[in-house]
Amino acid sequence: MDTMIANSMWVLIASILVFLMHAGFAMVEVGFTRAKNAVNIIMKNFVTISVGVLCFFFVGYGFMYGSDIGGFIGSDMFMLLNKPIEINGISFDIFFFFQAIFAATCATIVSGAMAERTKFGSYIIFCFVATLLIYPLIGHWIWGGGFLAERIGFMDFAGGTAVHAVGGVCALAGAWLVGPRSGKYKNGVIKPIPGHNIPLGALGVLILWFGWFGFNPGSTLDITSPQTAHAAITTLLSGAAATCGALVISSIKYGKVDAGLTLNGALAGLVGITAGANIISFVGSIIVGLISGILMIYSVEFIDQRLKIDDPVGAISVHGVCGVFGTLAIGLLSTAEGAKGLFYGGGLSLLGSQAIGVLISCMAAFMLAFTTFIILKNTVGLKVESHEEMNGLDAMEHGVSAYMDMV
Amino acid sequence: MDTMIANSMWVLIASILVFLMHAGFAMVEVGFTRAKNAVNIIMKNFVTISVGVLCFFFVGYGFMYGSDIGGFIGSDMFMLLNKPIEINGISFDIFFFFQAIFAATCATIVSGAMAERTKFGSYIIFCFVATLLIYPLIGHWIWGGGFLAERIGFMDFAGGTAVHAVGGVCALAGAWLVGPRSGKYKNGVIKPIPGHNIPLGALGVLILWFGWFGFNPGSTLDITSPQTAHAAITTLLSGAAATCGALVISSIKYGKVDAGLTLNGALAGLVGITAGANIISFVGSIIVGLISGILMIYSVEFIDQRLKIDDPVGAISVHGVCGVFGTLAIGLLSTAEGAKGLFYGGGLSLLGSQAIGVLISCMAAFMLAFTTFIILKNTVGLKVESHEEMNGLDAMEHGVSAYMDMV
Amino acid sequence: MDTMIANSMWVLIASILVFLMHAGFAMVEVGFTRAKNAVNIIMKNFVTISVGVLCFFFVGYGFMYGSDIGGFIGSDMFMLLNKPIEINGISFDIFFFFQAIFAATCATIVSGAMAERTKFGSYIIFCFVATLLIYPLIGHWIWGGGFLAERIGFMDFAGGTAVHAVGGVCALAGAWLVGPRSGKYKNGVIKPIPGHNIPLGALGVLILWFGWFGFNPGSTLDITSPQTAHAAITTLLSGAAATCGALVISSIKYGKVDAGLTLNGALAGLVGITAGANIISFVGSIIVGLISGILMIYSVEFIDQRLKIDDPVGAISVHGVCGVFGTLAIGLLSTAEGAKGLFYGGGLSLLGSQAIGVLISCMAAFMLAFTTFIILKNTVGLKVESHEEMNGLDAMEHGVSAYMDMV
Repeated sequence: MDTMIANSMWVLIASILVFLMHAGFAMVEVGFTRAKNAVNIIMKNFVTISVGVLCFFFVGYGFMYGSDIGGFIGSDMFMLLNKPIEINGISFDIFFFFQAIFAATCATIVSGAMAERTKFGSYIIFCFVATLLIYPLIGHWIWGGGFLAERIGFMDFAGGTAVHAVGGVCALAGAWLVGPRSGKYKNGVIKPIPGHNIPLGALGVLILWFGWFGFNPGSTLDITSPQTAHAAITTLLSGAAATCGALVISSIKYGKVDAGLTLNGALAGLVGITAGANIISFVGSIIVGLISGILMIYSVEFIDQRLKIDDPVGAISVHGVCGVFGTLAIGLLSTAEGAKGLFYGGGLSLLGSQAIGVLISCMAAFMLAFTTFIILKNTVGLKVESHEEMNGLDAMEHGVSAYMDMV
Repeated sequence: MDTMIANSMWVLIASILVFLMHAGFAMVEVGFTRAKNAVNIIMKNFVTISVGVLCFFFVGYGFMYGSDIGGFIGSDMFMLLNKPIEINGISFDIFFFFQAIFAATCATIVSGAMAERTKFGSYIIFCFVATLLIYPLIGHWIWGGGFLAERIGFMDFAGGTAVHAVGGVCALAGAWLVGPRSGKYKNGVIKPIPGHNIPLGALGVLILWFGWFGFNPGSTLDITSPQTAHAAITTLLSGAAATCGALVISSIKYGKVDAGLTLNGALAGLVGITAGANIISFVGSIIVGLISGILMIYSVEFIDQRLKIDDPVGAISVHGVCGVFGTLAIGLLSTAEGAKGLFYGGGLSLLGSQAIGVLISCMAAFMLAFTTFIILKNTVGLKVESHEEMNGLDAMEHGVSAYMDMV
Repeated sequence: MDTMIANSMWVLIASILVFLMHAGFAMVEVGFTRAKNAVNIIMKNFVTISVGVLCFFFVGYGFMYGSDIGGFIGSDMFMLLNKPIEINGISFDIFFFFQAIFAATCATIVSGAMAERTKFGSYIIFCFVATLLIYPLIGHWIWGGGFLAERIGFMDFAGGTAVHAVGGVCALAGAWLVGPRSGKYKNGVIKPIPGHNIPLGALGVLILWFGWFGFNPGSTLDITSPQTAHAAITTLLSGAAATCGALVISSIKYGKVDAGLTLNGALAGLVGITAGANIISFVGSIIVGLISGILMIYSVEFIDQRLKIDDPVGAISVHGVCGVFGTLAIGLLSTAEGAKGLFYGGGLSLLGSQAIGVLISCMAAFMLAFTTFIILKNTVGLKVESHEEMNGLDAMEHGVSAYMDMV
């Protein structure tokens, strides 16, 4: 057996692990929202996977990895026509499989932030835009031979920016434009709206963590590289440190061990290490995790209480803020030969490249998502009617209760 | 490391993924039925795995893969006596492990269709019959050197017929003979009985999809084959297309995005592609998925409203009907060298073989299952007493509530 | 690709499977306890993983696998300083990753036995002790070059003693010292306190079983060894046999198919085969499973009704008693060349070694855990106030309900 087979096997298995992350996202989003909207959020997750995979197959892959035009966008390989046998040292089919499952992740982040009040049809349309255009375009710049990686030297190992920051920024645009859930900000009082099933949410977090061991270590595409095992360990340590960080800070800040923040803490650490999991040291990954877990708490508070943007699951903070932070952290903590971070004697140049890359990616994602949502808002509408929100989306859009006989 | 080791590793991991499908089945069945029978359906799933694996070890494997007698049944290797070191290019032990976990799947399909009113003891007896005889016998015809594959040229890659159609047909016999749940068909009115936990059901579907990436791609037994990656992609695309198909058609037909049908749509697409996942093209797999998702909806309606057979989870339609459809679809869409489907210039001969194989397999499965259930019905009984059904099987057979303090 | 790469890939994947066991433990513990303490037990599981992994990285690994001092404890490699590239024929980083995920398992066992009445802070402190000292120390004796393996010839393949018996014995010390939940033993009446979510508990068991296929077969660290596939099959058969054993005996003993005991039966079989999964024959594994499943039932009854130690999830019996039994069973059923068990003509010597090893390990674990808990009890306290217990730990320690709007 040659190395190509070994690497293909590894990436195939890693892809399958990443697939289960969709179950993780679904359970986190369902657990952290209210029972009356549980079916709706589940359905949105199924739409994301299904629409996402098909859009990426027909168009998205071509935009992302097709022949580069001016560093800006790919231009062929739609429907995988004229596909090669191998790419990047692994089977082409397996490379596509890995990428297709990644693509749907980006949109999923948005469904959580807009949960409990967004029209089903409008969300579906956004899914098309996200997996046809937003993710593939920015992904091309970062991973597909585009200008961010090639000309600016931007580094994003497993998608701290390409997946998480981009998803988080789209979530920000969406949650802002759709407006808060009714009752959330009323007469100047900010009302917490707790989720209805913490055990399911916790299961979701652990499933996500499990899948992340495909997401990060799988991104080397190379089982023979020491970076693969390294990324597994940094993913473990960063998640653990972020959990501890969020647990301790939430206890001090709020006088109790907060479940939602601790669970989101784990995710914050996983997002935080994603961009640099392969080149940040073990101790570095613990630092990145700790800061991510704590940063997320302050970000959740800031977005909720200052910006008054209603993000039911904390997706903007977890994915957006920690995705950005983790990408910048490479500029400080990279140990890569020839691209060392500031703290390892590499000077400010890498940090500068990282900042430029993050800024361009996030601005582009925000503009595209904002434009999509503003068009939707002024045409089919973004938010459900207030009586639908009151009665719950499950009863109104799906004619069913998630927990028949129980609630 | 030679190819044998690589392939063995791959099949071992694929088997482990398939194992988790039992968790998927359990959650789908529990989520789609009522709270008062949740413990009972869980217990049936545990019986299926446990009895299934042991029966297959002691007897089933021998019937299925032992030395062939007349193309009809295997005749040795009971308890794996005199087992070889290798088989089909992988470790024998790993081949057995893969097959044993598959075997239990077939019976599991039946537990869903007969849920909420079947006697626990009778189901256990059926499990013995299914994994000692029904599955191994028909499996021998298809995969074990029997007459369907060898003489008729019947093709069933990963068990569209051997597992799903056979399971679905047994489910049909069982659900028909045990009769409907009380109140389901009363005075000519057909009463829908919704499940009690859609989030758990959805989790089950996603876990099943995850496991299917072991079930289908693993069935090549060969990580070096391009068919392995191909099967992963067709499994992804077919599931996605079927989800979309079921979502759209259920919305048009019933005026709402139906959760149960959309979730079952995903499963329908996965079942539909199982028989031909290795040799149907990417676009072909999208077509198979779309049709499977839609076909399932009409089948559920037909079985419920015309045949008046009560199938709480839709197992007959999902596994039986889509298993049959997918196996026949090979006759139309196969791209295999030397065995092309009708649409690829292969003429009608493959379609004919597929039809004969499906017909013989389903008839045999139906007769064996029908005989088993009719004997059970006239001896120990199939259906619980009406007061037991009313109070719930959990209270009556297990002396417990699934959700103490909650319901 | 050389064998080192193949083995490293296998162990990496096995480690990831083991990681999901934490989701399994969390769901089992949450499902088998009451709704009012669900968030608390979830939080304890997240603490276990996070604290456990970090402690093992900073100190535990060094004590367990660092340079041996007198057969008693390791002495370097803290923070993985001066780590080699390879160890035991695989990548060092992957070996550490596997070990770190194992380490957290031991403490998790304790959280279940002490559930529903233990102070959050005290449990955290115990987590530190368990993963800094107890598990690494005894692990060193068994796997790290210490005296039990090297001088006494003690055999423990995947942690029947090192993980499960040690965890179970710590659980015994903890559950005893913290005392029973209020109302459990009142005026001489023993009150059963059923769990609140059997479906989640069942999901947890199946996830654990799934992860066990990483835990046991992964412990060979060698995909080329026939023992890897052998261990997969014995893990499957033992779990299946134990489920059947527990189901039948609980039905006979209590007149109903008991869900809790059947689910714990599966776990008992998995624990039972852990120590000898690689060298006990297939039929031997069925025997070990059957006995484990039955033994667990009598042990649960004995601990609950005779010892009057309150173990909400049965962890002492499942992990402690079956871990001990399985380790001793090697002395009877080992088929290993040069270390055959009594029934295979090996005489009493191996059984003697096993007994000594189990005795020393369990005594050491008990003394260390007992000392820790007695100090905690007399300083910060072990048990929450009775009004906190009454109102539930979720409301009191976390200010939240696990099921907002539902209970």
